[in-house]
Amino acid sequence: MRKIGLIGMGNVGATIAYTLVTKGLADELVMIDKNEKKVVAEQLDLQDSLGRLDSNTTIKIQDYSELKDADILIITAGKVAAMGSGADGRMGELSFNKMVVADMAPQIKASGFNGIIISIMNPCDCMTQYLQEQLDYPRNKIFGTGTFLDTARMQKVVGQSFGVSANNVSGYALGEHGASQFTAWSTVQVNGVPIRTLQHSHNVDLDKFEEAIRLGGVMVFEGKGYTNFAVATCAVKLAMAVFSDAKLACPVSAYSDAYKVYIGQPAIIGKNGIESLTQIALTADEEQKMKASADIILEKVETLRH
Amino acid sequence: MRKIGLIGMGNVGATIAYTLVTKGLADELVMIDKNEKKVVAEQLDLQDSLGRLDSNTTIKIQDYSELKDADILIITAGKVAAMGSGADGRMGELSFNKMVVADMAPQIKASGFNGIIISIMNPCDCMTQYLQEQLDYPRNKIFGTGTFLDTARMQKVVGQSFGVSANNVSGYALGEHGASQFTAWSTVQVNGVPIRTLQHSHNVDLDKFEEAIRLGGVMVFEGKGYTNFAVATCAVKLAMAVFSDAKLACPVSAYSDAYKVYIGQPAIIGKNGIESLTQIALTADEEQKMKASADIILEKVETLRH
Amino acid sequence: MRKIGLIGMGNVGATIAYTLVTKGLADELVMIDKNEKKVVAEQLDLQDSLGRLDSNTTIKIQDYSELKDADILIITAGKVAAMGSGADGRMGELSFNKMVVADMAPQIKASGFNGIIISIMNPCDCMTQYLQEQLDYPRNKIFGTGTFLDTARMQKVVGQSFGVSANNVSGYALGEHGASQFTAWSTVQVNGVPIRTLQHSHNVDLDKFEEAIRLGGVMVFEGKGYTNFAVATCAVKLAMAVFSDAKLACPVSAYSDAYKVYIGQPAIIGKNGIESLTQIALTADEEQKMKASADIILEKVETLRH
Amino acid sequence: MRKIGLIGMGNVGATIAYTLVTKGLADELVMIDKNEKKVVAEQLDLQDSLGRLDSNTTIKIQDYSELKDADILIITAGKVAAMGSGADGRMGELSFNKMVVADMAPQIKASGFNGIIISIMNPCDCMTQYLQEQLDYPRNKIFGTGTFLDTARMQKVVGQSFGVSANNVSGYALGEHGASQFTAWSTVQVNGVPIRTLQHSHNVDLDKFEEAIRLGGVMVFEGKGYTNFAVATCAVKLAMAVFSDAKLACPVSAYSDAYKVYIGQPAIIGKNGIESLTQIALTADEEQKMKASADIILEKVETLRH
Repeated sequence: MRKIGLIGMGNVGATIAYTLVTKGLADELVMIDKNEKKVVAEQLDLQDSLGRLDSNTTIKIQDYSELKDADILIITAGKVAAMGSGADGRMGELSFNKMVVADMAPQIKASGFNGIIISIMNPCDCMTQYLQEQLDYPRNKIFGTGTFLDTARMQKVVGQSFGVSANNVSGYALGEHGASQFTAWSTVQVNGVPIRTLQHSHNVDLDKFEEAIRLGGVMVFEGKGYTNFAVATCAVKLAMAVFSDAKLACPVSAYSDAYKVYIGQPAIIGKNGIESLTQIALTADEEQKMKASADIILEKVETLRH
Repeated sequence: MRKIGLIGMGNVGATIAYTLVTKGLADELVMIDKNEKKVVAEQLDLQDSLGRLDSNTTIKIQDYSELKDADILIITAGKVAAMGSGADGRMGELSFNKMVVADMAPQIKASGFNGIIISIMNPCDCMTQYLQEQLDYPRNKIFGTGTFLDTARMQKVVGQSFGVSANNVSGYALGEHGASQFTAWSTVQVNGVPIRTLQHSHNVDLDKFEEAIRLGGVMVFEGKGYTNFAVATCAVKLAMAVFSDAKLACPVSAYSDAYKVYIGQPAIIGKNGIESLTQIALTADEEQKMKASADIILEKVETLRH
Repeated sequence: MRKIGLIGMGNVGATIAYTLVTKGLADELVMIDKNEKKVVAEQLDLQDSLGRLDSNTTIKIQDYSELKDADILIITAGKVAAMGSGADGRMGELSFNKMVVADMAPQIKASGFNGIIISIMNPCDCMTQYLQEQLDYPRNKIFGTGTFLDTARMQKVVGQSFGVSANNVSGYALGEHGASQFTAWSTVQVNGVPIRTLQHSHNVDLDKFEEAIRLGGVMVFEGKGYTNFAVATCAVKLAMAVFSDAKLACPVSAYSDAYKVYIGQPAIIGKNGIESLTQIALTADEEQKMKASADIILEKVETLRH
Repeated sequence: MRKIGLIGMGNVGATIAYTLVTKGLADELVMIDKNEKKVVAEQLDLQDSLGRLDSNTTIKIQDYSELKDADILIITAGKVAAMGSGADGRMGELSFNKMVVADMAPQIKASGFNGIIISIMNPCDCMTQYLQEQLDYPRNKIFGTGTFLDTARMQKVVGQSFGVSANNVSGYALGEHGASQFTAWSTVQVNGVPIRTLQHSHNVDLDKFEEAIRLGGVMVFEGKGYTNFAVATCAVKLAMAVFSDAKLACPVSAYSDAYKVYIGQPAIIGKNGIESLTQIALTADEEQKMKASADIILEKVETLRH
């Protein structure tokens, strides 16, 4: 029986719940939010859908004790800050979301939950780390969506440029899920061919790609006031990889021993959360960007700690 | 190849688009909205999801001419009025949405679209009728979601009361998708047993059910500011019934020769839209409620016509 | 985490496995068969599919101890007898399948499995009962697919005759999953209208329907040498109802206190297996057919017991 | 509306039909087979499933004229020869399947079908080519599943060895779908890292992998008497890529201008069938294997032509 907890029923949380219910992916769902009327409304709207679906999900709300036997806990709680004012807008949520974590952590602990935590709080890397520290949780069992979303955007931008499916584009966006993230172009392939090989013949401008990737999220935010579809799709894919022990290669926000921070890097996702980290050979330039990004995250982590 | 047009990218329209894309139900999707930034944002957010999905959907925007070879057109455009101020709040949208139809109808006509139209505009019945008249469209090829949603709510309320799946509850909510709708209890069965038979042994209070059904939508609206999940699920189910010529029995807003209005009634949905209407034996009381509901719709239709 | 055991990898078992894997419905699957080469081949063929799917299933084989923490056990083991020689051909499997149960029961017991058992052995009703007795298993936690399949055939035959979806046809085929089964026409509705009401206006011949329903399985058997698709689809639907605690109304082979046999009757399926039985009002004639069918099953049960 | 034709209702054809119907992927299906009783039986078994599914598929049989407006035609017809006697057993089907093509080609032509043809006849490459020639069909609009299946097997073998998902393994099996196929190891990556890089640190023996890949199909064949699940899954994925114009990178049997044969090579699949071929840099050794494999196919093509 697949049981998932979901803390935070904003646009991302609600979309995740809708996806789990309408695709028949979860057998039991526990939804928790500070706004009781909102979570009741989402529960009703989802339950109104069940008569039009072939699957069932038992939907419970506002009960931390129900997390005890949940397999997975997805956390989307927190304020969405002034993201529109730049990719670094995610930082605006920092102090508010610290309070959110301070409030929820003891309740998660008290529930006896000991499954896998997938964090989508912003800023993703430092909040994931802060929550891990507050819970004193095994590091492999908690990770953030991190650059899994940025990588999807990279795949889209590159795929569209070459006129092929985003699924044909492999490679990684790395670092902070924020302004300092970058695409490790040395890892990117299109239809199995290194993009650096295609660069000249196809007149590819990687800087323009980077710009388009970064701008993508901002345009979504500015047009909708939030982003939810792609990040929810990422979170659901990670949750399913945990349930089914898929050992799926995904760039997520995982703890780095080298940098002492949670940071977007390639990992293998399975029933134990982070099953392992994938060592990839980066160029010197990419290593430097990674280090710079880690420094930025660390600074935020320090702010949270104090 | 399954091609769907979608006019209106508010909460309902966006949820329908998300469902069609993430479930791999549509091969091509054309999204149109007055708010260009919004529709661009939805397109980007959906395209960012494609790299995390196993299916593909080609997503086009803002181009009426693309409707020419679409099979289905779902219309969710319009203002969501003061629904919170009562179930009849849907009427508040009347005059605004008349202008919306006046604007879109010529563009639909000019596109050469000749597929099936599913309308979710509010107030559903009279707006569907007004659009049909403006387009001078074959009546079987345009219908509204109508009481398909109310019926789902009835199934939920009854199912929960008996501790069984909403799918075990059959029967129909009929009439206006609005305050005058009613459940035809003579048609309702639980696990294949008429609810009237169970009424005494199970101490069932049908009036309380009616109240709960009516209140359901209001609570969703008040908690979220809109309703989208259940109605989107209904619309997608209807669209799939059309694509696959399912000949599925659904209560929808279809034209009634007897009442001269579009009104929620049992129909068979297939590739031609309304394949047929199902004649069900109502009680005298139910017939009277139906007539009263039809009168209310007719009055609104008359308002729209002038 | 959804874990399913599957004993018997013939045409039905293999199709169930394929469905669970390719639809992403099971996280872990344990497949067991007397024919080791066959089960290895199925495992390989399924694993070869994983690279083309978006979901994962861990597939284990030939290990009864793996059933310990499985939620559901589906049993399709046994010889498929001379079904082609008439609907009663299922009886030919009786003595052989008794040995199969005698062999597997101690191993199931030893595994510590305590989930829900769905039996598709033939003859379904008496074999399910025999297995329940051999395992001394709680009666609500083991049931057979029984007339769930026959009911699907009835829905198809009636639906086709009226030109509507099988899903629009409600009602029950009851009794033995064998020659003595019958459709309780008093329970059958088309688009929510009792079929007896439509009988005269639509010139419906219920006897011809019964014949077509009975003949359906035979024609499949004669053309393919076995039947698998529909029964696998039924079994998967039941398994999902258990996982998700759907409280779904399904006619299955459940124990009848009145008749002291497992027999096809309407039940509610949830996480506890048979959550409850649905009392439906049958006509005197239908009651008599039910009794006659129960007598036939009882005779077979007695044969098995001695 | 998605309409698919299917010629050949053996184990592969039936599994494809089952997948399309139970996953709700096709709106209309036309099934054709020389064995009329078999195709009737499959139709009945699939229709018996519809009452247990949330989707619908209209299933027609034995009518070539129905192919006229089909989007895709999947051909699995032909004799499955002594595959068990070695990977080259597929050749045994050559002369028989030539007659099959000679019989079906004029009927396909007469039907007016002008969609995309996906061939799974064996030996795959030469039969696809022979059919293309008999139909005088545009080469981009007909291709074979070819090494798409072998590549899936490679992904599985490599993934299992590294303890990760087959989906984490990229790269191509190339050449004939037969004994002369080979894995182009220079193209293979595990979690985005070239396998050659990992070879030493992980003590990887590529020859053993090749052996396991080749043996995989044989073991399935020997244990089941046929292979169907993985190849059906491949065919369905290709069909969906065509419907949705996915521009998906897949190694399939496509016509090579260089070798003048259909041969397994990386292609981009979309609504036009083969949208383009992907030029990948092979090692000299791999180029030689490709040439050798092409020669073998050409010899078979010549045999078919005369």
